[in-house]
Amino acid sequence: MNVGFIGLGHMGSGMAANLLKAGHDVTVYNRTHAKSDALASKGAKVALTPGDASKGDAVFTMLANDRALEEVVYQDHGLLASLKPGAVHISSSTISVALSKKLADDHGRQDQRYVAAPVFGRPDAAAAAKIFVVAAGKSDTLNSVSPLLDAVGQRTFTISDQPEAANIVKLSGNFLIATVIESLGEAMALVGKAGVDKHQYLEVLTSTLFGAPIYKTYGTLLADAKFQPAGFAAPLGLKDIELALAAGQELRVPLPIASLLRDRFLTLLANGGDNLDWSAIGGLAAKDAGAA
Amino acid sequence: MNVGFIGLGHMGSGMAANLLKAGHDVTVYNRTHAKSDALASKGAKVALTPGDASKGDAVFTMLANDRALEEVVYQDHGLLASLKPGAVHISSSTISVALSKKLADDHGRQDQRYVAAPVFGRPDAAAAAKIFVVAAGKSDTLNSVSPLLDAVGQRTFTISDQPEAANIVKLSGNFLIATVIESLGEAMALVGKAGVDKHQYLEVLTSTLFGAPIYKTYGTLLADAKFQPAGFAAPLGLKDIELALAAGQELRVPLPIASLLRDRFLTLLANGGDNLDWSAIGGLAAKDAGAA
Amino acid sequence: MNVGFIGLGHMGSGMAANLLKAGHDVTVYNRTHAKSDALASKGAKVALTPGDASKGDAVFTMLANDRALEEVVYQDHGLLASLKPGAVHISSSTISVALSKKLADDHGRQDQRYVAAPVFGRPDAAAAAKIFVVAAGKSDTLNSVSPLLDAVGQRTFTISDQPEAANIVKLSGNFLIATVIESLGEAMALVGKAGVDKHQYLEVLTSTLFGAPIYKTYGTLLADAKFQPAGFAAPLGLKDIELALAAGQELRVPLPIASLLRDRFLTLLANGGDNLDWSAIGGLAAKDAGAA
Amino acid sequence: MNVGFIGLGHMGSGMAANLLKAGHDVTVYNRTHAKSDALASKGAKVALTPGDASKGDAVFTMLANDRALEEVVYQDHGLLASLKPGAVHISSSTISVALSKKLADDHGRQDQRYVAAPVFGRPDAAAAAKIFVVAAGKSDTLNSVSPLLDAVGQRTFTISDQPEAANIVKLSGNFLIATVIESLGEAMALVGKAGVDKHQYLEVLTSTLFGAPIYKTYGTLLADAKFQPAGFAAPLGLKDIELALAAGQELRVPLPIASLLRDRFLTLLANGGDNLDWSAIGGLAAKDAGAA
Repeated sequence: MNVGFIGLGHMGSGMAANLLKAGHDVTVYNRTHAKSDALASKGAKVALTPGDASKGDAVFTMLANDRALEEVVYQDHGLLASLKPGAVHISSSTISVALSKKLADDHGRQDQRYVAAPVFGRPDAAAAAKIFVVAAGKSDTLNSVSPLLDAVGQRTFTISDQPEAANIVKLSGNFLIATVIESLGEAMALVGKAGVDKHQYLEVLTSTLFGAPIYKTYGTLLADAKFQPAGFAAPLGLKDIELALAAGQELRVPLPIASLLRDRFLTLLANGGDNLDWSAIGGLAAKDAGAA
Repeated sequence: MNVGFIGLGHMGSGMAANLLKAGHDVTVYNRTHAKSDALASKGAKVALTPGDASKGDAVFTMLANDRALEEVVYQDHGLLASLKPGAVHISSSTISVALSKKLADDHGRQDQRYVAAPVFGRPDAAAAAKIFVVAAGKSDTLNSVSPLLDAVGQRTFTISDQPEAANIVKLSGNFLIATVIESLGEAMALVGKAGVDKHQYLEVLTSTLFGAPIYKTYGTLLADAKFQPAGFAAPLGLKDIELALAAGQELRVPLPIASLLRDRFLTLLANGGDNLDWSAIGGLAAKDAGAA
Repeated sequence: MNVGFIGLGHMGSGMAANLLKAGHDVTVYNRTHAKSDALASKGAKVALTPGDASKGDAVFTMLANDRALEEVVYQDHGLLASLKPGAVHISSSTISVALSKKLADDHGRQDQRYVAAPVFGRPDAAAAAKIFVVAAGKSDTLNSVSPLLDAVGQRTFTISDQPEAANIVKLSGNFLIATVIESLGEAMALVGKAGVDKHQYLEVLTSTLFGAPIYKTYGTLLADAKFQPAGFAAPLGLKDIELALAAGQELRVPLPIASLLRDRFLTLLANGGDNLDWSAIGGLAAKDAGAA
Repeated sequence: MNVGFIGLGHMGSGMAANLLKAGHDVTVYNRTHAKSDALASKGAKVALTPGDASKGDAVFTMLANDRALEEVVYQDHGLLASLKPGAVHISSSTISVALSKKLADDHGRQDQRYVAAPVFGRPDAAAAAKIFVVAAGKSDTLNSVSPLLDAVGQRTFTISDQPEAANIVKLSGNFLIATVIESLGEAMALVGKAGVDKHQYLEVLTSTLFGAPIYKTYGTLLADAKFQPAGFAAPLGLKDIELALAAGQELRVPLPIASLLRDRFLTLLANGGDNLDWSAIGGLAAKDAGAA
């Protein structure tokens, strides 16, 4: 297929490369053009505006936040103005439910199509086409882009005909990860003050009931208190928790652990945590306990 | 070895049977004597008092709570009065840190020895010798009972020379499980109100980042809203969270998620939840969201 | 002075009437024109557009929320387009910090002046000119409108040269009131379940340490569980807590009680509370305790 | 009447003096005898054991905590062993609901009588007989000691025939005060970071809706960040919140703000707050906000 890709960050670069590998005709766009070069060397065409990357059958967007996505969509020579009738905007960014709804409406008015397809996985998984895609939208639209989704990930979950449902699922996933971080942080503050070695404690946990890689990954960061470099920076963590809370507000679903996480992120950022990994919120429990 | 076993509930029965299987000479005691019969048929001697089960080289206790343990230890013809100098009390119940410390002291004064060895796993794992043992105490004492610990579980973790540290680790584990329940409950309330099927949502989670069995087990209970029969009853869940909070208070470690869990358990019990599984706290988020 | 007044709700009507009483030349505007009649009979001129009420020396706005205020300010023939250079927009609505900042900027660009002057007090106090005005802005601007502020309230507090600071103080006040409601609700759930009469309990509180009228007012509503009619509707309460949290996010100030209040309001609204007084959040503690 | 008084701390000394002033025949006991001298000079008899202070018609106890009270009641030559049948133990300490119930039972078995009569007010109010007494117990018992209660305070509230209800009311009062402290701390962290002067902010609050002395008193401590000397030390604050939570657990009443306060106190104490006034928890919000 003839597909565009807008947003060549840590995740997007790998995803675009995998579309090329799968034999698709890929046109890439990134605000800072230097990032396009690596893709060009693999066969991608380079667009100079978001619009020029949006003239094919479909276009992915993989951007940092609502504002960045709004800019590429709504600017002059942007995505919305350039996408052909019937072509599909595949929105993979972690964005607000409100924006996802708005995009679905605005594309609909232009006879364009829209699916939300956020992904689970870190940059190395994106490079290896091992990420998971959570997709929602009209079923014929999803069918028409399934070769693209399959090319970027190891599995695609289709979960609703309402695009924004996929965004909510993505946000809920980050909420669950942040909960693991916070709860491990509290547990380690407790056993640590009781004199138990944190690495040994983590081994007990991961050998028994908590075998998921996520406990191993974040537990090790916490046991080492190693929060730099930031794999996923704390301000992005706050953003996602805010978006989960906003979705909860819209749907009237109180999320007390998310409320607590929000306060943790604010505390972290108010005390110099802007450049730390989001797992650093898990260090606050030890600090409150006078042990850090 | 010549070993006693006091407390033949769902967990204790399996553990005692595995001691027999391993070739040990086992004397069992249970308050309601009927439960001893099954073990007798497998070769156990049956004691009529806790003291009569405490005359060997070691004695396990596996009881419901502090009070039950205190009773068998401190009563006339109880464990403390009957244990020989040098013999070992292996305390596997989920009890308070305060009681564990007190037992260590009281046994020490009688030249008896004490280890805390709480376990992770459910009754079927206990029957299959697949539980995990978290042990703490003096190293020579631990060495002397390691054949017993190895007989009841698949692996023994030795984590401290302070017995109560093992109790804290056990309590922290139940705290982490309850956190998984609550966070899944909140996430499901959110995605459920957005129209996502809860079972499908759970499959996304468990296929991606949350592969640990615990997410599968409790997620299924939550998706089915099936809280009976109680595998682990809600009042026991509250008890363990209270004990974790008490440990936190003693060590001055605030545990905000545990505080939230405590309030959830109280809400559940105040509204008729005494006979429900502890996972029922995960249904409260949906209720607060007006969706249950 | 020649002054406009936009927004003749429960609060605005009384404030506008007091400006008339103080001898000012008042032009009023309200979206539903019927509300202007009562003021007209007291001597007010009636404007048919916000802009027509904004041609004097100053214009008050007293509207329900950000959106309503944005509409009157930014519409064609709106406030911003009509206000003379040097004239003052006195913004008394409870609005977001972000909008207050934006208004200050936009008026500045037009050589217009802006003060934030939210008020404390309920409709009867507004009618009696007994409300309190919390004002912020440049000191010469504040001086020039002080006769107007003094006419609507019993006292004006000047607290900052940054207009949005007054909005934060107002939001913090509503946060403190909601905290009183929630804490009284929890305390009453506790003593009520212990068999203490709630009215008698309230008398103990208000006769001793909690003599402020706010404890009496809301305590009586809670003791009576009388949440209708809504003096201040629950959705407005949620809005103000959200605005306080948003201000906290902007300034990186975690507000854990506000987070809890937000969850309470969402629970209330998710369970049919749209038409209840905001004090109804104080009834949720008793419900959680199985006593309501 | 012939009355004993056990516990001559800041509160008890003033109360005992007022009993003398009212013409009663008072015998005092304090563990450190030096404190009895001042009372002796005003006409009190000095007892050398708690029992010797418990031989009259009634005996007050005003002690620091459960343990101190249990000691004077249950020791050899203690209160329980010495009180005459029909004589009344007036228990004014802030103690647990559980101990209050136990005392009622134990005195009942000895044909002694018991009322719980905790008080609201600080030492200067106790000295001036301006405290408030919250009393509960059987009505004839309360009647028989009402001259004593009236002598120590400005007003006596009779709230239940169950003594422990008075203890719950007292604990709820301290919970409400701690809530005021925490919420003021959060609000001040917010407005402070917005550049508003905290003293001026407090004047706005206390001049408008929050006129109760408690806002003035604690707000001034917070605005000054002056937490020493401790009028009421942080560990005592934690104790009372723990007792409120324990009462809530017994009655199955979740108290989410109390849970949050408990975590605040633990944080304070874990970071060196043992000798600070309990209002110091109100400084933690500013610390979390990076502003202290």
